[in-house]
Amino acid sequence: MARQRRSISETRAALSRVMMPQDANVSGNVFGGTILKMVDEVSFVSATRHARTNIVTASLDRMDFHSPVHIGDLVTLRSEVNAAWHSSMEVGVRVTAENVRTGEVRHTGSSYLTVVALDEQGKPTAVPELVLETDEDVRRNKEANDRRRRRLADAAKGERGRKGR
Amino acid sequence: MARQRRSISETRAALSRVMMPQDANVSGNVFGGTILKMVDEVSFVSATRHARTNIVTASLDRMDFHSPVHIGDLVTLRSEVNAAWHSSMEVGVRVTAENVRTGEVRHTGSSYLTVVALDEQGKPTAVPELVLETDEDVRRNKEANDRRRRRLADAAKGERGRKGR
Amino acid sequence: MARQRRSISETRAALSRVMMPQDANVSGNVFGGTILKMVDEVSFVSATRHARTNIVTASLDRMDFHSPVHIGDLVTLRSEVNAAWHSSMEVGVRVTAENVRTGEVRHTGSSYLTVVALDEQGKPTAVPELVLETDEDVRRNKEANDRRRRRLADAAKGERGRKGR
Amino acid sequence: MARQRRSISETRAALSRVMMPQDANVSGNVFGGTILKMVDEVSFVSATRHARTNIVTASLDRMDFHSPVHIGDLVTLRSEVNAAWHSSMEVGVRVTAENVRTGEVRHTGSSYLTVVALDEQGKPTAVPELVLETDEDVRRNKEANDRRRRRLADAAKGERGRKGR
Amino acid sequence: MARQRRSISETRAALSRVMMPQDANVSGNVFGGTILKMVDEVSFVSATRHARTNIVTASLDRMDFHSPVHIGDLVTLRSEVNAAWHSSMEVGVRVTAENVRTGEVRHTGSSYLTVVALDEQGKPTAVPELVLETDEDVRRNKEANDRRRRRLADAAKGERGRKGR
Amino acid sequence: MARQRRSISETRAALSRVMMPQDANVSGNVFGGTILKMVDEVSFVSATRHARTNIVTASLDRMDFHSPVHIGDLVTLRSEVNAAWHSSMEVGVRVTAENVRTGEVRHTGSSYLTVVALDEQGKPTAVPELVLETDEDVRRNKEANDRRRRRLADAAKGERGRKGR
Repeated sequence: MARQRRSISETRAALSRVMMPQDANVSGNVFGGTILKMVDEVSFVSATRHARTNIVTASLDRMDFHSPVHIGDLVTLRSEVNAAWHSSMEVGVRVTAENVRTGEVRHTGSSYLTVVALDEQGKPTAVPELVLETDEDVRRNKEANDRRRRRLADAAKGERGRKGR
Repeated sequence: MARQRRSISETRAALSRVMMPQDANVSGNVFGGTILKMVDEVSFVSATRHARTNIVTASLDRMDFHSPVHIGDLVTLRSEVNAAWHSSMEVGVRVTAENVRTGEVRHTGSSYLTVVALDEQGKPTAVPELVLETDEDVRRNKEANDRRRRRLADAAKGERGRKGR
Repeated sequence: MARQRRSISETRAALSRVMMPQDANVSGNVFGGTILKMVDEVSFVSATRHARTNIVTASLDRMDFHSPVHIGDLVTLRSEVNAAWHSSMEVGVRVTAENVRTGEVRHTGSSYLTVVALDEQGKPTAVPELVLETDEDVRRNKEANDRRRRRLADAAKGERGRKGR
Repeated sequence: MARQRRSISETRAALSRVMMPQDANVSGNVFGGTILKMVDEVSFVSATRHARTNIVTASLDRMDFHSPVHIGDLVTLRSEVNAAWHSSMEVGVRVTAENVRTGEVRHTGSSYLTVVALDEQGKPTAVPELVLETDEDVRRNKEANDRRRRRLADAAKGERGRKGR
Repeated sequence: MARQRRSISETRAALSRVMMPQDANVSGNVFGGTILKMVDEVSFVSATRHARTNIVTASLDRMDFHSPVHIGDLVTLRSEVNAAWHSSMEVGVRVTAENVRTGEVRHTGSSYLTVVALDEQGKPTAVPELVLETDEDVRRNKEANDRRRRRLADAAKGERGRKGR
Repeated sequence: MARQRRSISETRAALSRVMMPQDANVSGNVFGGTILKMVDEVSFVSATRHARTNIVTASLDRMDFHSPVHIGDLVTLRSEVNAAWHSSMEVGVRVTAENVRTGEVRHTGSSYLTVVALDEQGKPTAVPELVLETDEDVRRNKEANDRRRRRLADAAKGERGRKGR
């Protein structure tokens, strides 16, 4: 059976949610953890749209929180699959926060997640091929492959560096 | 007024929680986002114990999920402040998952967070000095300073690298 | 000061969420209340995008649940402001559920909400004018005005009909 | 086996909950979605008391929110099965909000839900007959039958009206 | 100003909720903590109905869980104020669990809470007098006064007994 | 097969959580129910660590809330198994609240829970023996046995006393 193919645009997902008191500490600053949970959720949707299997997050790239997010801000996350390898995919997530009274939108942070497709027995399983349709798609895909090489190199070094912990 | 001092051991915090259905997808794999939210929570407790001010997470280091976590597993997070600079701190978090029936404990992942102390106006504010009491404390502190140097270097490169996104 | 204007496309919002065990009863059927809460949330985002003030839901049109939604389904809600009157707006919401394994998408239901903009004192306040850019916009707006006329007529009758309760 | 019978009074249910920050937006107005979710919950209890099977909400009648509900208000929902047909029931829900400091109680809204009983395979299944004991019961039941006729008529018209969407 | 009076029947409250996966451990047994949280909630409603001020729970009597509660059970809590002293009240709560498929109702447990009314400054404040209307009311009130005497006596002994901990 | 043995120190568990708006009423006082739910959770962890089976809470001793807990307080619960009988255990829980700005720690309350180990069929099952290693362990164990005798005596009396309810 020919392996299925899917375009990057088919994997696009968006989450929007107004930040509530339970998302923030008592001084109104939204927890990084609230954002991180949503980053994983939107990545889950994109990866599931591509793989159409169970999926599990294998890693989250370093994430900087560029500007504080406050209660009442509309947080929007947009994600898509940037690259699909045998059983793993890279999902890119971009987070913005919008002050809905002024309309000002700030880039809050971005991250890249590696997500693995699993079969019913919980073993890695092949995912559809990713069709690159636009120049933008080709750029995203190339960058994802670069990050993967760096990740693999860092992991090798990390193994040594973290040994002490 | 002499600046307050606090030891690493005073900043230690622990969270333990049994994973529930709402923490996992339908096939029983706990979401990375569930773990990431707890990582931020335990880091919040350690950083607050040190700074005794409002705090905000500025970044989370790349985090690998070494092994899947399942519903019913007892997830434990341990954290402490590894280094305190002027208004920022590095918090180290180590996550383990325990199959409570077999007693088997797995190292699920580790991460380092940079957390900033804020005053009542939301501006960065000085944190107490960190007292290093043991050889282990000195090692943790040295590694935190190394990571900070790498983070600053990576941030400089990252600014360029992410420009296209 | 000239009253602000905003196009329908600027008010568009989307929410996507994978249904979890806590969203459903023990036999796996997602509660209507879970969907209704999301309908109100996405409407809140669209109305807030248009009014940029506090807003409150004044009514929800009758809503039919065309097909059962199950745990694991990806529920997506899309909304936009169809019409803006003095201080009230009609928001249209369309709900779909996607079986992510098969890719099958079902139309789960649609509803129309009347939402009122409030000033800081909680009094109704004027909202920006809605700019109709496309034929589709004109059709949506006309239907919203028709529904409003029916709502006002039904409300008059309803006042009498519900008196006994 | 004779089909079971149950009286309207046996299906009565009540939910009371004090509104909390997470139920409201930042200006303290409780979300319509919070109320709608509770409407579905109390209807679930009444319908389950009658049918004693799995049940699923098929529709919610148009619901007006007569007056804003605030954090701290005690919201009470009362429901009962008004009519039982073959496998479906109409549940009536009445919502009140009480300012517990002043004792003032406001009628917040009412709605009628159509709920369907399901067997273990998820197919509609017969529900017990509803015994009408009082004049009030007879009135409720007659009105529920009237609403059903209107609903069926509206649904027929609605099919045409919504085609464009 | 004459102190307000309220009858026991005016303080009656009820909560009903179907137990969900998040209320239970992986083997389907509902956590005692889920029940205890609902006991406190229903007591909050009864005490607030009587005092119409802020209130705070001062103690919960020993509570036995007579029979396990399972996912899918309909848990109902009924409460009322049994006695009102100067600024404190005793609230009685009775918990039942109903297997909605069989209609079997089990008494799950009962407890008595002491609740204190607080003014805006957080200081204990006088509550309305409790009017006893029926023989049942008189019995409840007498038993509450007996329990209070025992509580005060036990507290005196407890102070000594717990010193070591 | 020799019955397994476990020391008290192996059963120790801790939970720490900063109190959030959803944990408290509108005047900022944390609900007793929030604390009670955490008491049951930490007891669950200790009992599971000892028994390594399903467990169910059989009773919670009377619990006094010594001082109000507020939003922003860091609540810490520490627990351990004090005694293990055939299939039941006593878990002791101690709750403290810390004002993280001043560092002031208050003893909020303590309680003792009786927890029963269950096998896969939900029947009580034997738990490992508890090894007493220190004088403190011996004291805790003796007190737990004293409380058990009182509980059994009270239960006998309670049966009579509660008959009227």
